Amino acid sequence: MSIITLTTDFGLADGYVGTMKGVILGIAPTATIVDISHGIPPQDVREAAYTLYAAYPYFPQGAIHVVVVDPGVGSERRGIALRTPQATFVAPDNGVLSYVVAGERVEQIVHLTNPGYHLSPVSRTFHGRDIFAPAAAHLARGIPLTELGQPLTEIVAFPLPQPQVRPDGAIVGQIIHVDRFGNLITSITATDLADYSLLGASVIEIKGQTIRDIASNYAEVATGKLLALVGSSDHLEIAVSGGSASQTLEAKGGDEVLLREEDPETRFLANDLAILHRIET
Amino acid sequence: MSIITLTTDFGLADGYVGTMKGVILGIAPTATIVDISHGIPPQDVREAAYTLYAAYPYFPQGAIHVVVVDPGVGSERRGIALRTPQATFVAPDNGVLSYVVAGERVEQIVHLTNPGYHLSPVSRTFHGRDIFAPAAAHLARGIPLTELGQPLTEIVAFPLPQPQVRPDGAIVGQIIHVDRFGNLITSITATDLADYSLLGASVIEIKGQTIRDIASNYAEVATGKLLALVGSSDHLEIAVSGGSASQTLEAKGGDEVLLREEDPETRFLANDLAILHRIET
Amino acid sequence: MSIITLTTDFGLADGYVGTMKGVILGIAPTATIVDISHGIPPQDVREAAYTLYAAYPYFPQGAIHVVVVDPGVGSERRGIALRTPQATFVAPDNGVLSYVVAGERVEQIVHLTNPGYHLSPVSRTFHGRDIFAPAAAHLARGIPLTELGQPLTEIVAFPLPQPQVRPDGAIVGQIIHVDRFGNLITSITATDLADYSLLGASVIEIKGQTIRDIASNYAEVATGKLLALVGSSDHLEIAVSGGSASQTLEAKGGDEVLLREEDPETRFLANDLAILHRIET
Repeated sequence: MSIITLTTDFGLADGYVGTMKGVILGIAPTATIVDISHGIPPQDVREAAYTLYAAYPYFPQGAIHVVVVDPGVGSERRGIALRTPQATFVAPDNGVLSYVVAGERVEQIVHLTNPGYHLSPVSRTFHGRDIFAPAAAHLARGIPLTELGQPLTEIVAFPLPQPQVRPDGAIVGQIIHVDRFGNLITSITATDLADYSLLGASVIEIKGQTIRDIASNYAEVATGKLLALVGSSDHLEIAVSGGSASQTLEAKGGDEVLLREEDPETRFLANDLAILHRIET
Repeated sequence: MSIITLTTDFGLADGYVGTMKGVILGIAPTATIVDISHGIPPQDVREAAYTLYAAYPYFPQGAIHVVVVDPGVGSERRGIALRTPQATFVAPDNGVLSYVVAGERVEQIVHLTNPGYHLSPVSRTFHGRDIFAPAAAHLARGIPLTELGQPLTEIVAFPLPQPQVRPDGAIVGQIIHVDRFGNLITSITATDLADYSLLGASVIEIKGQTIRDIASNYAEVATGKLLALVGSSDHLEIAVSGGSASQTLEAKGGDEVLLREEDPETRFLANDLAILHRIET
Repeated sequence: MSIITLTTDFGLADGYVGTMKGVILGIAPTATIVDISHGIPPQDVREAAYTLYAAYPYFPQGAIHVVVVDPGVGSERRGIALRTPQATFVAPDNGVLSYVVAGERVEQIVHLTNPGYHLSPVSRTFHGRDIFAPAAAHLARGIPLTELGQPLTEIVAFPLPQPQVRPDGAIVGQIIHVDRFGNLITSITATDLADYSLLGASVIEIKGQTIRDIASNYAEVATGKLLALVGSSDHLEIAVSGGSASQTLEAKGGDEVLLREEDPETRFLANDLAILHRIET
């Protein structure tokens, strides 16, 4: 039994997602279909790339992940299937797999050109239904990847938002995702923090606010207070306890976040002692 | 193994949809349940009818489609099950199957009167849970349709929004659905276009704007430009490349769209050459 | 085959719910996963408690219900699993099972302390993924509840919103849930109505409006009219036929509703005869 996940910008009000599931079940009746998200902002390839990246490692090895955020549908952009040691991905070749290819070894890529594995006729506006869903379902049935089309040796990827290190040692990152709770997920990872030895005593600056130290959970500070912590995807995250950092800071994707070592002399002059925290070592 | 699809106006925040699934799995534990939409605007029978119509043909033959958009729940309106060569439908008898009965031969209809296939007691406000979900689940288990109640020979249907042809040959249609992307799906189908030989060179008028020719995909015109194309459900669709036609035009369901042959003399006087397109023949 | 339901405040735009499903399927590949709701308002434990309570009795006996509305994640609050004759529940110990323990005999409770049944490492911010999903999946595979951690003899519960009876016999309740249709579900149950013999002839007061008698279905009164009825969860509910009581009355959770016997002398002096109804006896 195979798992097929779906990540799209289709929303759930129209029947587009249901239609894709109907197509999948017609080809692979025993596939287990799981929604990762259908609430990607319309045509936001970067959001889709991040959402897939945060979720797919938690699926069993061999799962098939379909992503349909596809502003170029019907144009010359290619449809692809790509295999890594962890999973198979089916998507338009528009950068939506950028985190995947940055983080894993790519074993095989094909251009989904074999019409025998498309619905017929193929529409010019809904390849999720006509090309990507059938490809995933045929893979779930055990059709070899190479049957689906021509091999490719390269795909489109965008540079991941890597934090920059300033001459003074401060790390400059950006907000890469705002979640439902208004938590601000940044491009700075736990690895970055460890590399720069900033995990223990540091100051975070965002939208003119300063946060001292890194908390270990949302409830550690008083309700309504800003905090920073390493979130569930191992990225530095800015949150408000019991509230929304996005609303409190009027922050959004792309906004800058700066992480620097604290000036030891100012450390105990901080006005707001309630947000002084030290992580266990 | 049977497929049961659900189309409702229940939304996903309340537990109503989950409750229906609990009932189904209690009766038919191996049924595969698929959501088509739960975001139908409250009590909007026409939207539900369209959404079902666009999705159900893509499910395997024999699927059971449950629709619960039911402003008359608890009143004298009937609950029905209806079979066509393609599928079985379980729904209130309020017109929600209008596209189905217009497009397919109806083999059998029953009034869901047999209390042996209802939950007990039946509430007056949630027949989705108490009558429709159990009916679908019993059908999935192989109970004959005729067991569920009395045969019927007619049901409620509304006239489909058919385009009208004016004396000058222009086609007048309307917007029948606005999707998440702001695409405007019209009542004019590809068949209508072919019948009136308008596919090749035509002008579309909507909300005071004029669109020349029919594009083949969203990316064919510059970002922000209006276009018209034949969408994935074979209906003429008005879109904005990389944007929302609904917002750009302030258009909504019911608004008029007019399709006419272009006056050859004005064709090459068009101000906006960027939207001049010719479809392959 | 086991059923695992999910009720969270995660929304569906982020991949959090999909991630939990990936974890479950990695441990219990044949589990049937059903969403009850992911639209609980962020961190609203009472809404989650109500939503679970209204839905879970309709699932087959033995289902495993996971609730993750968890403002205290990562703090000292405990994660628990709790078994009743009807079902097993996996949740933070924050009151989200208050209706369950008020309505059913509790057979067993454990504190989810056994690290062998956690993901490793356990994050401080996403126990839905790292503790609750794995616990549910291991239970679905048949692991005994007692394996998951230390036995507990008490849990956190909040007092249910019980209607009060005034000296003059009137019942004072409150709105405990507003659904997608704007229906106002109150804390007054059908049992309360029967106990106080108010089912036959009564007046409901809410937000300065008076509703006479209790209708049997939404369509019984004219469109746009206020009505009261016993809803699908056996609670007294205030609705507007074809509209939204929440909008009409500007009512929200916590607002007071009063139910009293009608003064017989004023009964037939009511201005608005359209809302005079008598329930069948």
